[in-house]
Parts: sequence; C-alpha cells; structure tokens
Amino acid sequence: MTVSAETLRLLESQAIELPSWAFGNSGTRFKVFSTPGTPRTPQEKIADAATVNKFTALSPSVAIHIPWDKVDDYAALGKYAEDLGVTLGTVNSNTFQDDAYKFGSLTHLDPKVRQMAIDHHFDCIDIMHATGSADLKIWLADGTNYPGQGDIRGRQDRLADSLGKIYARLGEHQRLVLEYKFFEPAFYHTDVPDWGTSYAQVSALGDRAMVCLDTGHHAPGTNIEFIVAQLLRLGKLGSFDFNSRFYADDDLIVGAADPFQLFRILYEVIRGGGYGPDSTVAFMLDQCNNVEEKIPGQIRSVLNVQEMTARALSVDTVALAAAQEAGDVLGANGIMMDAFYSDVRTDLAAWRESRGLPADPIAAFKASGYQEKICAERVGGTQAGWGA
Amino acid sequence: MTVSAETLRLLESQAIELPSWAFGNSGTRFKVFSTPGTPRTPQEKIADAATVNKFTALSPSVAIHIPWDKVDDYAALGKYAEDLGVTLGTVNSNTFQDDAYKFGSLTHLDPKVRQMAIDHHFDCIDIMHATGSADLKIWLADGTNYPGQGDIRGRQDRLADSLGKIYARLGEHQRLVLEYKFFEPAFYHTDVPDWGTSYAQVSALGDRAMVCLDTGHHAPGTNIEFIVAQLLRLGKLGSFDFNSRFYADDDLIVGAADPFQLFRILYEVIRGGGYGPDSTVAFMLDQCNNVEEKIPGQIRSVLNVQEMTARALSVDTVALAAAQEAGDVLGANGIMMDAFYSDVRTDLAAWRESRGLPADPIAAFKASGYQEKICAERVGGTQAGWGA
Amino acid sequence: MTVSAETLRLLESQAIELPSWAFGNSGTRFKVFSTPGTPRTPQEKIADAATVNKFTALSPSVAIHIPWDKVDDYAALGKYAEDLGVTLGTVNSNTFQDDAYKFGSLTHLDPKVRQMAIDHHFDCIDIMHATGSADLKIWLADGTNYPGQGDIRGRQDRLADSLGKIYARLGEHQRLVLEYKFFEPAFYHTDVPDWGTSYAQVSALGDRAMVCLDTGHHAPGTNIEFIVAQLLRLGKLGSFDFNSRFYADDDLIVGAADPFQLFRILYEVIRGGGYGPDSTVAFMLDQCNNVEEKIPGQIRSVLNVQEMTARALSVDTVALAAAQEAGDVLGANGIMMDAFYSDVRTDLAAWRESRGLPADPIAAFKASGYQEKICAERVGGTQAGWGA
Amino acid sequence: MTVSAETLRLLESQAIELPSWAFGNSGTRFKVFSTPGTPRTPQEKIADAATVNKFTALSPSVAIHIPWDKVDDYAALGKYAEDLGVTLGTVNSNTFQDDAYKFGSLTHLDPKVRQMAIDHHFDCIDIMHATGSADLKIWLADGTNYPGQGDIRGRQDRLADSLGKIYARLGEHQRLVLEYKFFEPAFYHTDVPDWGTSYAQVSALGDRAMVCLDTGHHAPGTNIEFIVAQLLRLGKLGSFDFNSRFYADDDLIVGAADPFQLFRILYEVIRGGGYGPDSTVAFMLDQCNNVEEKIPGQIRSVLNVQEMTARALSVDTVALAAAQEAGDVLGANGIMMDAFYSDVRTDLAAWRESRGLPADPIAAFKASGYQEKICAERVGGTQAGWGA
Repeated sequence: MTVSAETLRLLESQAIELPSWAFGNSGTRFKVFSTPGTPRTPQEKIADAATVNKFTALSPSVAIHIPWDKVDDYAALGKYAEDLGVTLGTVNSNTFQDDAYKFGSLTHLDPKVRQMAIDHHFDCIDIMHATGSADLKIWLADGTNYPGQGDIRGRQDRLADSLGKIYARLGEHQRLVLEYKFFEPAFYHTDVPDWGTSYAQVSALGDRAMVCLDTGHHAPGTNIEFIVAQLLRLGKLGSFDFNSRFYADDDLIVGAADPFQLFRILYEVIRGGGYGPDSTVAFMLDQCNNVEEKIPGQIRSVLNVQEMTARALSVDTVALAAAQEAGDVLGANGIMMDAFYSDVRTDLAAWRESRGLPADPIAAFKASGYQEKICAERVGGTQAGWGA
Repeated sequence: MTVSAETLRLLESQAIELPSWAFGNSGTRFKVFSTPGTPRTPQEKIADAATVNKFTALSPSVAIHIPWDKVDDYAALGKYAEDLGVTLGTVNSNTFQDDAYKFGSLTHLDPKVRQMAIDHHFDCIDIMHATGSADLKIWLADGTNYPGQGDIRGRQDRLADSLGKIYARLGEHQRLVLEYKFFEPAFYHTDVPDWGTSYAQVSALGDRAMVCLDTGHHAPGTNIEFIVAQLLRLGKLGSFDFNSRFYADDDLIVGAADPFQLFRILYEVIRGGGYGPDSTVAFMLDQCNNVEEKIPGQIRSVLNVQEMTARALSVDTVALAAAQEAGDVLGANGIMMDAFYSDVRTDLAAWRESRGLPADPIAAFKASGYQEKICAERVGGTQAGWGA
Repeated sequence: MTVSAETLRLLESQAIELPSWAFGNSGTRFKVFSTPGTPRTPQEKIADAATVNKFTALSPSVAIHIPWDKVDDYAALGKYAEDLGVTLGTVNSNTFQDDAYKFGSLTHLDPKVRQMAIDHHFDCIDIMHATGSADLKIWLADGTNYPGQGDIRGRQDRLADSLGKIYARLGEHQRLVLEYKFFEPAFYHTDVPDWGTSYAQVSALGDRAMVCLDTGHHAPGTNIEFIVAQLLRLGKLGSFDFNSRFYADDDLIVGAADPFQLFRILYEVIRGGGYGPDSTVAFMLDQCNNVEEKIPGQIRSVLNVQEMTARALSVDTVALAAAQEAGDVLGANGIMMDAFYSDVRTDLAAWRESRGLPADPIAAFKASGYQEKICAERVGGTQAGWGA
Repeated sequence: MTVSAETLRLLESQAIELPSWAFGNSGTRFKVFSTPGTPRTPQEKIADAATVNKFTALSPSVAIHIPWDKVDDYAALGKYAEDLGVTLGTVNSNTFQDDAYKFGSLTHLDPKVRQMAIDHHFDCIDIMHATGSADLKIWLADGTNYPGQGDIRGRQDRLADSLGKIYARLGEHQRLVLEYKFFEPAFYHTDVPDWGTSYAQVSALGDRAMVCLDTGHHAPGTNIEFIVAQLLRLGKLGSFDFNSRFYADDDLIVGAADPFQLFRILYEVIRGGGYGPDSTVAFMLDQCNNVEEKIPGQIRSVLNVQEMTARALSVDTVALAAAQEAGDVLGANGIMMDAFYSDVRTDLAAWRESRGLPADPIAAFKASGYQEKICAERVGGTQAGWGA
C-alpha cells in the first residue's frame, strides 16, 4: 500500500464544495461556447453537482450565486438539493453585472449605489437563513481602469464602512469571507487586490470575518502556500477557491497547471491545522470548463484535490523535521518529493470501491447515461451562464 | 519653442488607423456595459472614426473586422467612408467566434475546419480588393487550455500550411500581417504566442508577409522596444496595434499605463527607420474603451501617440551617440529623459491651430454636439460589440 | 510659472536619506566593477553623501549599514557627519553575510543562531543611541531555496518571537521598520515576502513598529501606489526605499524605469498624508550604481524624487474630485496626466538658484573638482562594497 | 512494470553533460557560502563530475568554462578526464568578468573591445580542437541598465558581425550555440533576450549555428515547451541548459520548482525528434548549488532528468492522438497526466542495479566516503567559484 490507513481515514471526511455556475456556460470576452445539456435553472445545476457527488462522495454541498441562482423559494431549493444528497453551501454575492456598478459597488462614491450593493448582501443573508448556508462570500469587481479615475484611499474607507454594515447583519453562526484578486475586470487598481488588504479589512470586522484565497488570484510567481501558512497562523483563512492557471485568472481545473504547487498548498493546509474535522477552512472549486465537458471536468477536479491531499498527508513529517534540523537541504526536499511522486491512484481507486463508489468515477459517469439524458431533456430555454 | 520645426514637419504625415470596433461596446468576461450613442452598423462606426479624424487629422483610415463589419456592398462602404474624409484600411479576419473554431481555426486538426478558416480569409481578400485595403491582419485565438489537448508541433505545421494558402491568394500590392499574443483566450498554449513564432512563420511565406506587434501582447517585463528594433532590423515589422496595459491584454488607452514605454517604443521606431513617409510600418490602435467615452477615448489615444512621437523626435541623437561613445551612462540616459520630460503640448496645440484644427480636440468634440446627436439618433437596433 | 509657490513651499522641507553603501561598489553575482575614487571607509562614504547634499540640499542624512559601517566611535562618526552638514540616519542591520546565517537569522531553527542575530540588532540599537538615529531598519535575507528545506510556518513564529525581543529593546523614541521583499536571495520562499506579512508582524509588535516599502521588492505588475495608500490608511507606513526596476530587484535609479509609477506613488503619499512636516514617513534611496557614476547617480536620484514630487503636488485635486464624482474617467485621468506631463524642471532650477543652490547640481558637481580629488586621494586600501 | 522495456532501452543512451562550475562555490550578489571539499582546480572539478557519472552513468561529459578552467595543457586535461571515465564537452566562453566588458563584449561600440571578445572565442575554439569538444557555447551578459545607455539596434548589428567572425573560425565538425536570457546582469535591455533573437542571429550564420535554451531564462509565464517544439521544427534547437526557477534565473535543481513543466518540456523534445541517438540536441545542466551539497545536488539533478524522461517516454501517444482527434479535452489531458503521475522510481532503481549501478545513487555516494576524502584533501588553495 502506498497510501496508509491513517491517510485513508483522514480522507474520509474530505468535502469540496462545487460552484453551481461551473455547470453553466463560461468563456472569455472573445467567445462563450455553448454545450448540449447545459442547465437552464438552478435546479438543473444542483442536479449536476449532485451527480458529481454521487460518483465521488467528495462534494456534498453546492455554492450558489445570487442573482444567478435566484428562485422564489430557497427553502424549497434546499429541499430539492437534499433530496439529491447535497446541501446548499456558500452564498456568493454578485455586484458586478448591474449597470449601476460600472464604477464600483461597496466602494462607490455614490451612497445610493453603495446602499444598493449593501442591500444586495442583506438579501444574500436572508437567503442564507433560508438555505442554512454558513458563509457569505464577497468577491468584488470594484476597481478602476485609469489612474485618477477613482480615489484609491477613499474607496478603501468606503469599503470598510460597507463591509461593517454587512457584517453587522450576519447571524451569529454565519461568516463573511472576503476574496481578493490581483486584477480583472479592473485593469489599473482593484479594491481588494491581495491577501493583505483582505486580511486588514476582515480583521477590522471581527472574528467571523475571514479571508477567501482563490488560487488563481495572485501576481505571477507568488508563493501561494506561504499565504496559506500565514493566514492559518493569523487565524484568518476562511475558505479556498480552487482552480489553476498558467497566466492570469485562467480558472482551469485545479491541479492541471502546476500539480506540485497544489501539493505544496495542501501540505501547508495540513501543517497549519487547516485540514480535518476540527478545521473551519472551507474548500470549494471555482473553475470554468470553457472547452472541456463540465460534469467530468468537475469530477476530475475533486479527484485531483483528493489525490493530492493523499500525497500531502503522506509526507513523513518526522523525517522532514529531522532533515530540517540537520540542515540537510536535499534530504528535506527529497522527503517532500517522495510524497509528491508517490502514485496514490491505485490505492485510492481500491479504497473508493471498498466504500461502494466507482473505482473510476469519470468512466462510471460516462457509462451512467446521465449526460445523454440531460442532452435529450434540456432542450429549449436559456442555458445558464455568467449572465444568466 | 520646445518642439522644433523639423519635428513639426515630420509630424505632418503621421497617420494612426482606428479600429471600427473601438466604437462598439466592449468589456470583460464579467460584463459589457452599453452606452448611449453606440453605433449599430459599420456605417455608424465609420462615422465616429471619421469624427476623430475631423478633430485631429491623425486618423485618415479605419480598420474593419470581418464578419463584424460585413455589408453587402464594400465599394459602397468605401465610398461612404471617403465622403466622410477617411478610407477603409486593414481588414481583420475573425476566426474565433464560430462554434466550429472551438479547437482551432487555421491550426485545426480537421481539414474541413481549416478550409473554412482559409475560405474566410479568401473572403477577406476579396473585400480588400473591393475596399482597396492593403493589409490583411490575422490574429488567431488558436491554442489549447490543457497540456495534451492539442499537438503543439502539428498545429504549427498546419498553421504554416494554411498561411501559405492564404498568402498565395494575396494580390501583388497586398500584405499579410500576422499578430502574436502571449495568451488569451487560450490558457495553456497559444499557436502564435511571441514575435519569434510570427517572424518564423512570415519569413517562410515571403516578402509581403510581416509581423504585427500589439503592445499589449507580451509576457510581463518584456522589453517591447527591443522587439521593435529587432523586427525593423530584420525587415519584418509590418504594423502596430497600439494600446496599453498594467497586467495582461488590458487594451487600455495607448500611453495610459506606462508613457515612458511608449516613448521608448517610438524612439526605436524612428531609430530603425520605421517612421516617416518612406516607412511601410502601419500604425493603428487596438483598444477597448470599456468604461470611458469612446470617441473622446480615441481622440485622447491618437493625441497621445502624436505627443509622444514629438518627444521621441526631439531626442538629440548626436549628443546621445557621443555620450554612448564616451560610456557616459547618466549623460546618455539624461538625453533621453530630457526629451521625454519636455512638455510638447503647448506647441502642438498651437501647431494644430495653425493647420485649421482645434487646439484642444477633445474640448472641440465635446462642444460640437456630435455626441448628443448620436445619442438622440441611435435609438433602437442592436449596439455593435465584439459579438455583433 | 508651471510650479506654484505653494508647491515650492512644500518642497522646502523635503529630505531623502542616502544609503552609505550606494557610494561603495556594487554589482551582480556575475561581476562587481570597481571605480576610481570609491570610498574605503565609512567616513569617505559619508563625505560623498554630504557632497550630494551640498549640491542639492535634499539629503540631509545618511543611513548606515552594520557591520559595513562599523567604527570604534559612533559619536565621533556622527560628529564627522555633522561637520559635513549631514546627520546619521537609519541604522540597517545585516544578518545575511555571516556563514552562520546560511539557513536563516531571526527565523533560524537553532536558538543560538537566532540569539546571535538578535544580539546583532541589540548592537544596532546601541549604535542608534550613540548616533541619535531614530529608525532601526530590518531587511532579512531569510528564506529557503527548496520546498521542504524549512518549515514556513515555524519560521514565521520564530520571526515574531525574535522581532518581539528586538522591539522590546528599542528606546522610546526609536522605531523598528520591517522591510519586505518578493524574492532574492532566497528562491523558493522568503520569510517576509509581502506587505501583508510585514504588516501582520509589525502590528503584533506595537505602535513603533512600521513597514518599510522598497519600490523594487514586489511581484511583477503589483500596484505599488495601492500599497502606499493602504499602509498610510492603516497607519503603518514607516519608510520608503526608493529605486526602480524593469525586472526584479534591479536597484536602478529611482524614476528611471517607470517615471509615471513614481508619480503615482508620490501622489498617493501626498493624498494619504505621508508627505510634509507632520508626516513620520521616512524617505530614503536604496539603489546600486553598478555601471554609472556614483555621486552623480545619487544626485540624479534625489532630483528625480524632487521633480516628481513637484508634479504630484501640482495635481488639481479639486478638479479631480469633481471629475471622479461625475464619473468622468477621461477627465479625471487627464488631470493626473496634466500634472505628470508638466515640465517642472525650469522652475525648479530657478528656485534652486534662488536658494543659493546650483541650477544644475550635476553640472556643478562635475565642475567642482570633487571627483578628481577623491580619485587622486583614495588610492590604496580596500574599496567599500557590499562585502566590505 | 510501470516502465516499459522500450522506455528502458531508450534511456540507455541518455547523457546529460555537467558543468564544471557547478562544483565550485556559487551564490547571490549578497553572499557566496563556501563549503568544505570544494574544488580548487579544473582537475578537481572534473573529478567531482566523474564521480556523478560513476554513480549514475548519466553524465559522461563535462562542460568547461574559459577562463575559469584555464590550464596550460588541454590535451592533458582531456586525458585526465578520460582516465576518470568522462570526456570534456562544451566549451563555454566568458566575456562578462573582465573590466573591459563593462559596456559589452561582442556588441561593444569600441572595435578593440569587440576584437578582444572575438579573440577570446578564437582561443576557445583552439581549446575545442585540443579537447575534441564539439560545441562552443556563447552566453553574453551584454546589455544596458538604462534607456539611452546603448544603441539597441547598433548593438544587434555589431553582434551579428562578431558572431560571423567567430562562426567562420569553427572547424567543420564544430557548432556554435547561442544562449538567450531574459535579463540579468543587464537590467534594461539584454542583447540576446529571447529565442527569437537567438534564432534570427544563428539563422544568419549557417547550419552549424544553433540556439541554446536555458530553462531558467524566460519571462514569467512563458510556455517553454512551445519554444522547444518550435525550435525543433525549425531545426535550430542546439542544446539545453537545465535548471529550474520560481522567480528569475534562480538556477535551482532541474525539476525542483515545477516538475510538471519539466515533463512537458521532455515530452515535446521527444515529440519533435530531439531525443535519442539520432538527435543532435545536447543536454546539459547549468545550475548553482548555493545552499545544498554540490555532488549530491548534481546526482539528484541527472536522476530528475532521467526519471522525467521515463515518464515522458511513457505517454501513450496513440491514445493521445485519438483523443485529440475526437476533441476529447479531458481524455487527452488525462493521458498526459497518467504518464506524469506514474511512479517510475522503483523500476528505474531496479534497472540501474541490473546495469551494475547503485539503486540509490545518492545513498551510494554518501556511503562511498568520497565527500569525506575531498574534505580532508582539499585544504588550502583557493576554492573555485564564478570568479575563480
């Protein structure tokens, strides 16, 4: 066995939330390709997400995006999800697609626009109460394209004020997680561009305000696992948005671009106490499947996280500490590489089977006829996408 | 006078082609904001471009994009432009918005799709004959998102083959310019990612195949003026797409992000013989005005190029050569900075007036009532955009 | 007059500290070129720095580096400086050139090495008492080259502990400023890689612990003026190390690579209250003059900061606020660009003369015979450099 | 068996040249740490390199650097190497450590300095005749730190002229390989900054002039395997300098920073015909072991290349082509990942033993007593380093 029993035990409780929007169409500013079987309703997105969980037992919850997943009855939506074996998770606010937000939302100079954005978050909190969601995730597109367009300092102060009002509205078991992003859609300055800003803002709010780390939202060359270690140390790592990138915020399948980086990130998560039943760190995907099949793409993603977690859990930490103490650079690095290069796939496949799951979840999904079924059924209507 | 008579004389013939699509709506994958007065037809775009030229005498031609600017009668379209004082310039092909091109166009594995893309270029050449356009510009979105998705090497060979067929179809006074781009919309590999690839491909075609340099299409930190100098030296700099960027292909107003870089680029253009009546280098803009006014944005852009050209023409090249020969690093650099820091704006305003142009073209445009007129007139219909 | 009387008044108190090591030899890992006249002692470095101040009245203090500037009698060294019209400023600790620090200093796993590094800082504080220096600046080379080589999290905890001991030793009018750096000399992880880490560490120490921002120490594309605005807002911007870069930590002359960036940085300094007699932000240079003349290089640098400060002070902030309120992107940006493109050099030259300073400090220095004098006098001995 | 017999057969002829300078001390501009047992002579470096080959059978030749490895009798040096089971390989010229080259070597404005640099290459060619070396490798530090310091265009022309003279001197079985590098030690422009420049320059020379690709010499985010594929396609990939980097030219152990990138590079090497007995592509390391043990560091490096080559050879290219043809993005990517995640280490260890080599070459080296022996013997004298 390459994978120890202890590692398998620790993998049992792994949960990676899926974003409902991963099942809708996505693309670039140049083109969004549509695909047969794409969901047209929040319910259909949830059904697809539940299917990923059915074949992997890795994704027991689904994040929703408001207003993309607006429905009349959220309790009913939650019940619908539960019937499919998943729950509704993080509620993601959207203040970047209304014309009013052209020059900002929570940071806007105009108090009316700011209040409109705050109210949207109040609505999201109401939805959280209906769905039982624990986390309100805020990613802001706020920023400017040209020097002088906005007042960087004033916007930061207004952001603090707006976040304070939203935070005050949270229920006592609810959290606010603030995501940062290096750039895009703003091309000169972004109001929450780095972990330091998110950390400073959420620290000013209180204990239930946390940082969300999206693995694709950093400057070139940034050591992301350092940020993981630092935020865990500071008690402020709230959640992950997993994906991967070669260039900017490419939103590719997690682990596809630099698997060794994913390994190092997960290693620091474990090292810092961010993994396991006692951790409050939430893990979710935030990817686009622009050119690949969506459901298999999400299955591949959660398996990538599972497999890499198995590798990271396999690091011989006792030997590693000894090598570090001895100043044995090659030895210490070798211990990390040994775990990374271990092929955990056979053991994990067997373990999955032992738990009543398919050894090869993608093959099982393909054999299931689900894709053919949704292609046949989901005809007419408007396919969901970022603008839906 | 800060600006010499010789410099003014050299500025007289400056021409910066405008892209018709700059007047339509643009945005990011997150949101495209619409604006009152946005053109709904190729004619309206041309009218706006002609307006920029009317106030600046800097943009006597308009590039068109096929199929975005498809009309039944291109000769009539050319006549329409001429009546407004401009001509139709570069024809830009578009092989990135048809579903068939999901996995490539000129590089596609399927010969039928390749032929479809080649045929599109044949159509563009036909249009060029009708409009009298000299340049066929090819920017390809071709590439892949994941390692293994495509065969990098085979795609390059197919690209060469497809380009060969297109090149063979050119009229004897027509050119093919091949644009390169670092990344986007492809996120793993791009088939023409750098100047070296474009250079190798066009060199294999012949004398009338040239490289197009878009200032926003490089890896972080790339010394763009070096590439300008190199391509001029190799006789292969066909044209420029001007814009600016802080991060990726941000498509901001040229000169807005790093004006000193624009200065250095224009200095090397002049140094290498790429400026002036004897040069065959074509200059055009390729920008998006996502959040700013479109016509004033284009006026600002051509003025930025004009002003920076004036500064670059002002470099004391005799003194510079002497300082370089003497190994006087600070002296040589100081000569460059002197030209860059010279405020040419007052002199250029006066010179404009002396030529019957407004001293302040943006103010003159705003006072002209043109914007109010198009806002009133252009109601109904579909605003032009990247998907129009 | 391009430069207003108010701007000139605000420029009067500008002070930019010079680093003593800028006058010694520097270079890259490939080669350090030596130059005639290079100082061999701390006194000679101070004399050169005082010369820069003599011709510019911009650099009334000199930062020293321990052990590079170790002397027996620091009070005497301070007196020596005063006699030349300057004072001794920031004391920079050096824990990166002793063999003991191969695997870290304040973060080292071995408590003996940590104590050695802490003791070195205690020595620096003693020197500060002797020289009257206010700031202890800590830049750490600590980090690792390979994943696994060190324990990122543990190192951060040890760093906090070490800094706490040093902070406790400070006199009540002394400050600790902690510099961050993206990478180099460590190539996998750096223990203080970003402003967030520096901010989190100094926040844990107390009011007199601040962040030092070196303009060359960021990831590609980082919006540095945003960090300036943020740190000022958080009350934690202690000091600047000015220089410029095209690629990594190139340590070029401030303003040489991207003058517009320097303008934006200084604009946010002013906007955030970081400039002027009431500000506690310390400004200094930290550059290498690898291939250019050293004293003129430093004169050029302080003049660059002065000229750019004049431009930044010239921004019409009332009009800017109005344009921002109106959502006039081009107008707001234009107000910034107007100030940037204003040629302040003639006015500043006249103003210098009015204050008994040379209009052209570099020319005056060259005419002074100082360089010839030091070339003749400073023969024999060992030229100062980074290892001196 | 994870590794097929065919793969093992193809691995038999793998050869990775070692650089003599890897065994000397190296470091950063901040500090070079010395280590016990470091060679003091070219002979001692060769002995260390031969030791790596003894334990791995992967490094049958040693590259030398002139003047670092200057000796009176190169034929004798070659004989010395042969007695240790290795040959002398690539001759690397050095035109960056003489004071005369402060402002350039082959590109220098002064014809006398250019001739001096050319003569140095003539000397290198003479040495190649004596040693039987096939390749003259030219890496130039030439470039400038400030805009205006040099004439980019003129320098390029002079480079072409100088290279032409050197190329003309080559023996008919000798090659010139021209290395490019993004930046460092020059911080504004570098005369051979990218593969396009190297390609254009060597194409102008002739068939025996080729490009050298150093894996650490690219802009952030560059797709290196694309360049590999392109250069192989163009018939101009002469050689590799293997190393790895997180940031700039970090010169870390090959495969240490991004093992998946190394996999993709080797895959394209194989795909393009660059691997195997018929290929003329030369593979060598160019790394620094700044903080790790040098001989084990080099052993680790060649093993990394061997193991990753085994993975790259294992790609099921028939299935891959089919998946590509079917537009099966996830399937195609999965085939690549399957090969990458295969754990080839056990099979390769067994295969090594079957060939009379140690299963674990690093452990065998450590047990051999070689390091203790050289530590004891190599006392006194000057340790070799970049300046030696």
